[in-house]
Amino acid sequence: MTPTLPHPILQALIGDAEVGAYFSNEADLAAMLRVESALAEAEAKVGLIDGETARRIAESCRAFQADWSGLSEGLARDGVIVPEFVRQLRGAVGEPHARSVHLGATSQDIIDTGLILRLKGVIEILGRRLDALIHALDALKRRDGATRLMAHTRMQQALPFSAADKIDTWLQPLDRLREQLQDLAPRLLVVQLGGPIGTRGELKGQGDAIADAMAEILELGLAPSWHSQRDRIGEFGAFLSLITGTLGKIGQDIALMAQNEVGEVRLATGGGSSAMPHKSNPVPAEVLVTLARFNAGMLGTLHQALVHEGERSGAAWTLEWMVLPQMAVSAASALSKAHGLMAAMSFAPSKAAGP
Amino acid sequence: MTPTLPHPILQALIGDAEVGAYFSNEADLAAMLRVESALAEAEAKVGLIDGETARRIAESCRAFQADWSGLSEGLARDGVIVPEFVRQLRGAVGEPHARSVHLGATSQDIIDTGLILRLKGVIEILGRRLDALIHALDALKRRDGATRLMAHTRMQQALPFSAADKIDTWLQPLDRLREQLQDLAPRLLVVQLGGPIGTRGELKGQGDAIADAMAEILELGLAPSWHSQRDRIGEFGAFLSLITGTLGKIGQDIALMAQNEVGEVRLATGGGSSAMPHKSNPVPAEVLVTLARFNAGMLGTLHQALVHEGERSGAAWTLEWMVLPQMAVSAASALSKAHGLMAAMSFAPSKAAGP
Amino acid sequence: MTPTLPHPILQALIGDAEVGAYFSNEADLAAMLRVESALAEAEAKVGLIDGETARRIAESCRAFQADWSGLSEGLARDGVIVPEFVRQLRGAVGEPHARSVHLGATSQDIIDTGLILRLKGVIEILGRRLDALIHALDALKRRDGATRLMAHTRMQQALPFSAADKIDTWLQPLDRLREQLQDLAPRLLVVQLGGPIGTRGELKGQGDAIADAMAEILELGLAPSWHSQRDRIGEFGAFLSLITGTLGKIGQDIALMAQNEVGEVRLATGGGSSAMPHKSNPVPAEVLVTLARFNAGMLGTLHQALVHEGERSGAAWTLEWMVLPQMAVSAASALSKAHGLMAAMSFAPSKAAGP
Amino acid sequence: MTPTLPHPILQALIGDAEVGAYFSNEADLAAMLRVESALAEAEAKVGLIDGETARRIAESCRAFQADWSGLSEGLARDGVIVPEFVRQLRGAVGEPHARSVHLGATSQDIIDTGLILRLKGVIEILGRRLDALIHALDALKRRDGATRLMAHTRMQQALPFSAADKIDTWLQPLDRLREQLQDLAPRLLVVQLGGPIGTRGELKGQGDAIADAMAEILELGLAPSWHSQRDRIGEFGAFLSLITGTLGKIGQDIALMAQNEVGEVRLATGGGSSAMPHKSNPVPAEVLVTLARFNAGMLGTLHQALVHEGERSGAAWTLEWMVLPQMAVSAASALSKAHGLMAAMSFAPSKAAGP
Repeated sequence: MTPTLPHPILQALIGDAEVGAYFSNEADLAAMLRVESALAEAEAKVGLIDGETARRIAESCRAFQADWSGLSEGLARDGVIVPEFVRQLRGAVGEPHARSVHLGATSQDIIDTGLILRLKGVIEILGRRLDALIHALDALKRRDGATRLMAHTRMQQALPFSAADKIDTWLQPLDRLREQLQDLAPRLLVVQLGGPIGTRGELKGQGDAIADAMAEILELGLAPSWHSQRDRIGEFGAFLSLITGTLGKIGQDIALMAQNEVGEVRLATGGGSSAMPHKSNPVPAEVLVTLARFNAGMLGTLHQALVHEGERSGAAWTLEWMVLPQMAVSAASALSKAHGLMAAMSFAPSKAAGP
Repeated sequence: MTPTLPHPILQALIGDAEVGAYFSNEADLAAMLRVESALAEAEAKVGLIDGETARRIAESCRAFQADWSGLSEGLARDGVIVPEFVRQLRGAVGEPHARSVHLGATSQDIIDTGLILRLKGVIEILGRRLDALIHALDALKRRDGATRLMAHTRMQQALPFSAADKIDTWLQPLDRLREQLQDLAPRLLVVQLGGPIGTRGELKGQGDAIADAMAEILELGLAPSWHSQRDRIGEFGAFLSLITGTLGKIGQDIALMAQNEVGEVRLATGGGSSAMPHKSNPVPAEVLVTLARFNAGMLGTLHQALVHEGERSGAAWTLEWMVLPQMAVSAASALSKAHGLMAAMSFAPSKAAGP
Repeated sequence: MTPTLPHPILQALIGDAEVGAYFSNEADLAAMLRVESALAEAEAKVGLIDGETARRIAESCRAFQADWSGLSEGLARDGVIVPEFVRQLRGAVGEPHARSVHLGATSQDIIDTGLILRLKGVIEILGRRLDALIHALDALKRRDGATRLMAHTRMQQALPFSAADKIDTWLQPLDRLREQLQDLAPRLLVVQLGGPIGTRGELKGQGDAIADAMAEILELGLAPSWHSQRDRIGEFGAFLSLITGTLGKIGQDIALMAQNEVGEVRLATGGGSSAMPHKSNPVPAEVLVTLARFNAGMLGTLHQALVHEGERSGAAWTLEWMVLPQMAVSAASALSKAHGLMAAMSFAPSKAAGP
Repeated sequence: MTPTLPHPILQALIGDAEVGAYFSNEADLAAMLRVESALAEAEAKVGLIDGETARRIAESCRAFQADWSGLSEGLARDGVIVPEFVRQLRGAVGEPHARSVHLGATSQDIIDTGLILRLKGVIEILGRRLDALIHALDALKRRDGATRLMAHTRMQQALPFSAADKIDTWLQPLDRLREQLQDLAPRLLVVQLGGPIGTRGELKGQGDAIADAMAEILELGLAPSWHSQRDRIGEFGAFLSLITGTLGKIGQDIALMAQNEVGEVRLATGGGSSAMPHKSNPVPAEVLVTLARFNAGMLGTLHQALVHEGERSGAAWTLEWMVLPQMAVSAASALSKAHGLMAAMSFAPSKAAGP
C-alpha cells in the first residue's frame, strides 16, 4: 500500500534522523491531531461547542489510530489528507460529537498549523545546532588558531594568515544566522485559522477569539489567516538555504585545504574507496557542498510557490510539501556534519606560508 | 536504523509506484549485483579470472542477502555504498574467489552502470506511457474534437476554435518527446567501466574487451568510461523536465477550463474538501502543474552537478543521487496522472464561443 | 568597443529606470570613486597618509574621467575592474600621491563597498515603493472594499467574500516585508574593508580605525571584513524574491479575476493585440507573474554563490554580479507595476457571489 | 529614452559580442522585418494579396526606419512590440497596401519566427565553436598528451595518468554535444505561423500553403503552429546549459590544476590583482564555472515557462525573453573562453605522479 519512496538508504549519507522525524507520517498525523484537539478546546472556551464535546474530541485525538491506507487513498483523491482524516476522526469521536470535529475550519488550517508546530521543534534544533557549531569553532580556534596557513584568492596562493583568521570567516556568518533566526521565528511560528476561504467566516463571529485561544494552547504566535500568503514559508526556506550555503563554503574550504598537495587540514577519519585503499576521502566536507547546492536549487523552487493564486492553490501548496521538508532536513544534516567535521579535523601549518 | 525519510505518504499524491520501485533500496542493490556478476562473467570471458570464480560470484550475487544496517553505515562513512557492499559480497563469495569480486573496477562503475540498467527500465515505462497518453488524446479528439471552445490568449477570450485544435497543441509536443527519447536513449544507455581513475588501467590491457562483454551481457551500449562526464545525466534530466513541463501546460489548461465560470472541461471525479462539500477540485490537473514546477527547478539543480571536478566529484555525484530519482518519479507520475485525466474529462461547449 | 547587451528594449517592459540606474556603468564607477576617496580620507584621519594626499585623491575622484575602453579590457583580463581602475586613478592623481591611492585595500573592498552604497539607495527606493503600494491598497480597500466577490480555492468557486477580504491577503505580506527590510538593512548596509586577504593586514595595525572612519564617512554600518561571507547578499536576494513572489501572487489573482468569464476586476487600460482589436490584455498583471518566476529562479542561482571558496572566489563572486542587479531591478519594477495596477483597476461585483 | 540596462560593462568579462549581436534591438527588428516581408511574399504566392503589394511591403521592410521610442512605449503598453511595430510598418508602406501588412498573422508568429531565424545563426556559431574547441583539444592532446599527471578523485590524489587521459574526458562530451545539436536543430529551426489563436484560421484556408512558402523563403523547417508548445525552447535551453556545464567542468579542473600547490597546468596569461602583484589568476577558468552555474540556474527558470497556459501566455512567454538570450550568450562566451584557455595553457608534469 505504501508507495515506493525516492531516496531511502541515501538518507544515511545526507539525511538527519532527528529533524527527519518531524516530517514522518506519524509526526504529521500527531501534529494534525494536536491542532484538531486545540481547535475543539478553543471552540469550547468561546462557547461554540460544549466542554464535554471538546473533551471527547481531545480524548479521541489522543487515542486515534489511523487507517493509513484510507488516508493514503484520500490524499490521492482529494489532493489533501484532511477530508479523509476528519472522516476517520469523526468516526472515532462518534455521535453526537462527531459533527463538532473540525468545526468551521478548513484543511489548510490543520495542515499549516500542524506544519508550524513541527517547524517550531525544527527551529529549536537548528538553533541548538548553530550554537553547538559556534562553540566547536570557538574551541577549534582556541586550539589551532595560531597555526600558520596560506590564504587563497581566486584559487591561487595569496598571503599567509592564521587559522584563527580562517575560522573567523566561518564563524561570523553563523552569528548572523543566529540573529536572523531570532528575527524570523516570531513571524513564522503563528497559528493558521481561516476556515474555508480564510475569513474565519464559519466561526459565528468568534473566529478571532478562537484563533487566540488556539495560539495560546499551542504556544504559537497570533496572526490573521495566511492561507494564500506564503512569504513566511519563503523566508524560512531562504534561511535554511543560508545555513547550507554558509556550511557549503566551509565544506569547500576544507576539501580544498585537505588536498594532498595543500595539506592544511587533516581529517581524523576519511571515507574509504573500493579501488584505492590508500585514499582517505573528505566525505562530510563534500556532502556540505552537495547540501548547499541542493538547498540553493530547492529555494528557487520553493519561491515559485509564492505565486499562490486565489484563496488556496493546490498546485503551489503541493509544491511546498515536496520541497520544504527536504530543505529542513538538509539544513539540519549540514549542521550536524559540520559539527562532526570540526571535531575530526585539525589544521596543519602550510609549508608555503613559511615559519 | 533506517533514517527517517522526507515525504512518505505524500507519494500517494505525487509519486509513482512502478517507476518509484526502480529507485528502492532493493532495486538499487539488485542492479549492483547484476553489474558485479556481469563484470566477473566478462572478466572470465577474456581470461582475467577463471570461469569457476565467475560462476561462484554470479551464484553469490543471485543469493546475496544484504546486511542493510552495515550498508547504511558504510554509505555514511565512505560517501558511497560500494566499499561496504563489496566487502559483504566478498564475504558471501568466500575464499579463494573473494579477491576476484569487483576486480579492477571502482565504485562508480558499479553505481553508474546499475543506474543505467534501471534507467533502461524507466525509459521503457516512460515510452509506453507516452504512447498511451498519445492514444488517449487521439481518442479524446475523435470523441470530443468537434466541441466548440473559446481560445484564450493572455488569459483573455480570443476567438472560438474546436476541442480538436486544443488537443492538437497538447499532442504535438508529445510526438516530439517520443522522437527525443529515441535520440537520447542510445547516448544514455551505455555501460560505465573505468576502474579507479577512468582509464581501465587496472584491467591488464583487457579493459575495452571487458567493457564490450559487459555491455553485451547487460544489453547496454558501449562507451568509453564517463565517470566525470555527466552530460548524459543532464540530457536525460532535461528530457524528464520537458515531459513534466509539457504535461504541466495541459494541467494548467484543464484547471483553467474547469473553472466554474468557464466550464469548458468537465471532470468525472474531483477532489473533495473538508469544509465545502459542494466543491469538486481538479486535483490531478493541479498536480501536473506542481510536478512541472518541481522538475523545472530540479533540472536547474541537476545541471549544477555538471561541474564535476577532477576524475570523480563526491559533491557533484551525490547531488545527482538526490535529484535524478525524484525527477524520474515525477515524470512518470505526471504521465500517469495525465492519462487518468484524459479518461475522466470531457469537453463542454463554450457559451462564449457561440453555436 | 561596448559589447552587445542581452535584453535592451525589453527593459521597457520589465525594467525599472530608477533602480536600473544604480547598476549602470556610471553609477558603478561613481560608487567606486566614493569608496577610494573615503578610504584615503580615513587613512589620513589615522595618519597612514597625509592630509594633502587625501585631498588630492578626493579631488581626482571628483574629477575623474574614465577611459572606458581600458576599463573594459582590464575587466576582461583581470576578472575584476579594479586593477585597471586604480591604474587610471593613480594616473589622474599623479606623483607623488599616486602610490597612496587604494593603499592597503583590495579590489573586493572597493567593489563590495561600492555595491553596498548603491544597495542603500536601492533599499530606500524599495521601502518607499512598499509604502506607496501599501497606501494604494489601503485606498483601494476604502473605495472598493465592500464589493462582493467570489473566493476561489483550488481554482474553483468556494464561497462569497468581499474585496476587502481579498485586499487584506495582498496587504498583509507587504507589512511583513516592510518589517523584514528593517531587520536586514543593518546587517546588509556595512562597509567592506579587508585588504588582500581580508585581515586588514596591510593597514599597519590601523585597519579597524580606518574601517570605522570609512563607515562614518560613507554612512554605512561597521563590520569585520566579509569578503568570503556572502550570507548578506543571499539574504537580500531572498528579500527581493519575496517582494516579486508576493506581487506575483497579486498579479496572478488579477489576471484570473480579469478573465472575461469571471469579470471581478476591470482594468482601465489593457495591452493591445496585433491581431485581435477587441482584446484588452492584463499585461502588467502578467509581468508580475513573470518577474516572480524570474526572481525565484535567480534566487536559486544566487544562493549557489554562497559556496564562495577560499578567501575570494572569482567564480562565485562573478555569479553574484550576473544575478543580483537583475533581481533588484525586477523587484523594483514589480513594485512599480503593482502600484500602477492598483491605480488602474477596480473591483466589480461577482455575479456568482450573489447580492 | 533607453531604459538603463542590467549589466553593461560586465559583458566584457562574461559576454560574447558575436552571439550577443543576435539579441540586439537591431537584430531583433531586422528579423521581424524579414518575417513580415516573407509573410507578404508567401501570401502573394498563394494569391491572398497581390504581387505589387508584396513587393511594396518587402521594399518598406528593407528601408524601414524604426521610431524606437514609440516601439519602446508600445512594448511597455501591449506587452509585446508587434502591435506598434506593425503600426509603424503600415505607416511606412502607406495606403492602399498598408492593410495587407501582417495579414492573418499574430504577434507571436513574427516574434517566434524572428527568434528562430536568429537562433539559426546562433546555432551555426555554436557549431563552429564546438568544432574549433574540439580541434584545439585534439592539438593540445597531440602536444602535451604524454605529460604525466595525477588523477584526483573526491579531491584527493588517486593514481597517475596522462594528460591525454584527462583531455579525453573533456573531449568526449563535446562530441556528444555536436551530435545533440544535429538532433535538435531540425526540431527547433521551424517557422511559426498560426494567426491569432494558432489555427491559421485567418488565412482563408491557405494557411498551410503560406507557412510552406514562408519556410522556404526563410530557409526554415515546416511545422504546425506551436505558439503554446515551448518544448523546442526548453530543449534548446537544456543544450545551452549542457555546453556551459561541460565547459564549467573543464574550467573547474583547470583552476584546480593551476593551483600553486598542484602546478599541473600553466597559464600563459593570468588576471592581475590590485593588491598582490605576484598573483596570476586563472580568470577564464573561473568564468567557465560561473557561466555553468548561471546557465544551470537559468535552465531551471526557462523550464518554468513550459507551463504556458492557454493559447498564449504573456507571463510565460516574457519569461523566455528574459532568460534565453542570456543563456545563448553565456554558452557562446563559454565556448570562446574555453578555446582561449586551450591556446594559453600547457600541462606540466605532476611531481606527485612520479616519473
